[in-house]
Amino acid sequence: MTAGSTAPLDYVSLKKKFQPVLSKRVENRHLKSFWNPSKLPDGVIELAGGMPHEKFFPIEAIDLKISKTPFNENPKWHDSFTTAHLDLESPGELPIARSFQYAETRGLPPLLHFTKDMVARINRPAFSDKTDSNWDVILSGGSNDSMYKVFETLCDETTTVMIEEFTFTPAISNVEATGATVVPIKINLSVDRQSQGVDVNCLSELLENWSTGPYSHLNKPRVLYTIATGQNPTGMSVPQWKREKIYELAQRHDFLIVEDDPYGYLYFPPFDPENPLDNPYQSSSVTTERYLNEFLMKSFLTLDTDARVIRLETFSKIFAPGLRLSFIVANRFILEKVLELADITTRAPSGASQAIVYSTIRAMAESNMPSSLPLKELMFESWMQWIMQIASKYNHRKNVTLKALYETESYQAGQFSVMEPSAGMFIIIKINWANLGNPEDIPQQMDKLDEVLVKNGVKLVLGYKMAVSLEYSMQHSDFLRLTIAYAKDDNQLIEASKRIGNGIKDFFENYR
Amino acid sequence: MTAGSTAPLDYVSLKKKFQPVLSKRVENRHLKSFWNPSKLPDGVIELAGGMPHEKFFPIEAIDLKISKTPFNENPKWHDSFTTAHLDLESPGELPIARSFQYAETRGLPPLLHFTKDMVARINRPAFSDKTDSNWDVILSGGSNDSMYKVFETLCDETTTVMIEEFTFTPAISNVEATGATVVPIKINLSVDRQSQGVDVNCLSELLENWSTGPYSHLNKPRVLYTIATGQNPTGMSVPQWKREKIYELAQRHDFLIVEDDPYGYLYFPPFDPENPLDNPYQSSSVTTERYLNEFLMKSFLTLDTDARVIRLETFSKIFAPGLRLSFIVANRFILEKVLELADITTRAPSGASQAIVYSTIRAMAESNMPSSLPLKELMFESWMQWIMQIASKYNHRKNVTLKALYETESYQAGQFSVMEPSAGMFIIIKINWANLGNPEDIPQQMDKLDEVLVKNGVKLVLGYKMAVSLEYSMQHSDFLRLTIAYAKDDNQLIEASKRIGNGIKDFFENYR
Repeated sequence: MTAGSTAPLDYVSLKKKFQPVLSKRVENRHLKSFWNPSKLPDGVIELAGGMPHEKFFPIEAIDLKISKTPFNENPKWHDSFTTAHLDLESPGELPIARSFQYAETRGLPPLLHFTKDMVARINRPAFSDKTDSNWDVILSGGSNDSMYKVFETLCDETTTVMIEEFTFTPAISNVEATGATVVPIKINLSVDRQSQGVDVNCLSELLENWSTGPYSHLNKPRVLYTIATGQNPTGMSVPQWKREKIYELAQRHDFLIVEDDPYGYLYFPPFDPENPLDNPYQSSSVTTERYLNEFLMKSFLTLDTDARVIRLETFSKIFAPGLRLSFIVANRFILEKVLELADITTRAPSGASQAIVYSTIRAMAESNMPSSLPLKELMFESWMQWIMQIASKYNHRKNVTLKALYETESYQAGQFSVMEPSAGMFIIIKINWANLGNPEDIPQQMDKLDEVLVKNGVKLVLGYKMAVSLEYSMQHSDFLRLTIAYAKDDNQLIEASKRIGNGIKDFFENYR
Repeated sequence: MTAGSTAPLDYVSLKKKFQPVLSKRVENRHLKSFWNPSKLPDGVIELAGGMPHEKFFPIEAIDLKISKTPFNENPKWHDSFTTAHLDLESPGELPIARSFQYAETRGLPPLLHFTKDMVARINRPAFSDKTDSNWDVILSGGSNDSMYKVFETLCDETTTVMIEEFTFTPAISNVEATGATVVPIKINLSVDRQSQGVDVNCLSELLENWSTGPYSHLNKPRVLYTIATGQNPTGMSVPQWKREKIYELAQRHDFLIVEDDPYGYLYFPPFDPENPLDNPYQSSSVTTERYLNEFLMKSFLTLDTDARVIRLETFSKIFAPGLRLSFIVANRFILEKVLELADITTRAPSGASQAIVYSTIRAMAESNMPSSLPLKELMFESWMQWIMQIASKYNHRKNVTLKALYETESYQAGQFSVMEPSAGMFIIIKINWANLGNPEDIPQQMDKLDEVLVKNGVKLVLGYKMAVSLEYSMQHSDFLRLTIAYAKDDNQLIEASKRIGNGIKDFFENYR
């Protein structure tokens, strides 16, 4: 790879540029096809592909009841529900005969086109040519599957991957399964949205002085893996100016950016202590356009003049995790290599999952008919409206929880701080130790706190268990992560917040 | 590993025995969990796992229309259709709140238990202890995904894997992706069911003389991959006496058997030329019990006193391929290692697919209520009845096709032979060259034949393209594979058979 380029990157340039960053194992991947499902002259009977005729399937039809509002309690059917019908022949572009059959590894075309269109509208890659032909999207079986395929394509025993010092730890397992080595990079834990997230000075220094630094025995990093928006576990987001700086570092030190973005659509406007339950998403002035342009963080793709960003999106948080359905966005060369792995391993994600997602979005659009928009536009618009409703619910839950935490005696006594999240599903709570003594006591102290919290009726995740390297992050690992995603209602979040306050108080009074 | 053992193998013995056959990469696989979804005291509010509450899902309910008969044209609803209803709370054991949520990597318990019960009834492993605790089943994302996970667990650069000389070629890609090397083993192409399939004498000789044979530069094989029933592409099945012999060789030469069995349920009674459309499956005397005991081939598991067999089953051919749903049966130690790979890569297969399969089988059982059988038994019985209907349809299609092929002028002129299949979805046709000349001309001649067949309106697969090593199998590679699975009806199979006859005749008369 080399940094910077002005002309759009064509396939040949992409190949030349990215061939050297592929893992050695990519060479072993060759799908041995014995038959090419090519276009045959009309009337030829095709007895080649070993596919059962769709009338062998026991499923004849599927009817979906679709809620147009999360936590729907509106009794008026037409306002709040819609339906979708699928059978062997319908909907025409994706009937059961198609979705329940063997299908394209990259995903079924109607859903695939929908996702590519979404990316083109929201986060079009800076390196894109006019026809969006030098980048692409493939569907995958959940972001864990996506990241595995990406790391397996980029990493082997000699590869170094940088990861935010606290992270979704299965991502570490995923990198290490390729034989590669993970190094933690510092993040700023701060409520100031302009300074939170990856510490770019530290990152710059680490890379500039690699050969004399603590990891001089490792190769310079080939990849940065980042959950840049609504980071797990911290709930923090890398601000735009830092994204630009990180991208410059990627160019200068020639690494790829794997941007895992499961939470990006769940962006939170800042919390207003004067008006804690204020929720801009409930205002009719927040249109899809404003939501996309003024609220959401932009993907690294939008800065990506070099085609070095790989973006992972998922339907898990905005539709349902059990679908195991996600997508990967990257330059066409790298994506083809990822697809080759899928071809010989998982093949396509579940067609049932794909059909359910596609039909649901289509039904949402149809329920908004008649409209001046064509169906394709209306599908995008309707899906964004659904996502905004999800974001609104999460924002409300975040507000309810912050308010309840701030009202606890323990908070008011200064026993903990709350790191207000800027996006996602998580809030972290930092313990304010009066006199901790040795930071190495943190894990032990936190384990004790966990016990006391459970005794007080609430279970959270301990920050130190999400450290890439506990040694590296010990001093900052004294936090708890709570999720606002799974509670059944506001009251449960309020009750849990009280118990957190009580538990921390109990801990300070009786267990230290 | 060591051969033979009489006492049931417990986990510790399994570990000791099979640890040495794991690939080196298994060592890099460690799921880094940051939170253990353990049982909490009653009343504790759980804000740990980052799971969206089910009311965030847009799907509120799913209704399935289920055919009780493949190619159902019966207008009487109650006789031939049933329905299943799923919503956030029902069915109780697998509601949408569960199936669309993050879930166990190994599969959702109700479907997982159903599949283990199926295996225990039909192909219980010979090494099983009394409580079936030393072997297990995990669900997976289609057999391609299953085999990838198995090979990735057993193979690396130094591993040799034996594969039938003609095979489903993506399996080769799959082995080679691990860095391992594939060697072909000879199969007998014969209509005699006692001699068809793996050539056990050749296999024995190959293994006995490994160090002086053609592959002496490779390690002795660690694995045999076999599609032992209704083999793809040949449609042949390894008879019971050969299974016993192969198992003895596995013990003697210490290799594992990966038994890929997508077609096993589609077993064909022999074709009767006097009564070509005779179909025993249509007789009411073929009960589930007779079908299982007198018709189906038994899995290698039933011979497996050493726990060296890994069985791959799939819902692709008997339900629908687009589900991407399959399962793996193996001893508990190996299966745990496979599961560890799933944990850090794909995680669970689609919950939507799992819910559809489980609900369908349950609904089939409920439609057979009232019954003297409890629901669990009735589910097994009802599912076997469905499978038998599928087998019956395939058997009928095979009969129709053989009859039509035998009626062609080309066949009667001795221009081709038909290798009557004993199971599955495929029939192979051998070309009877009067004077071929050099066998090395086969690929070129077959390509020409393919062109002529397409000109005559039919497209098949060329056998030589499914060879593990064309060099090794050249002389026997002059066959065509046709599938009976995808045609829309009998007439299409009859018409295609005529075109095959015409095409071969045309080839002999005008292109040789």
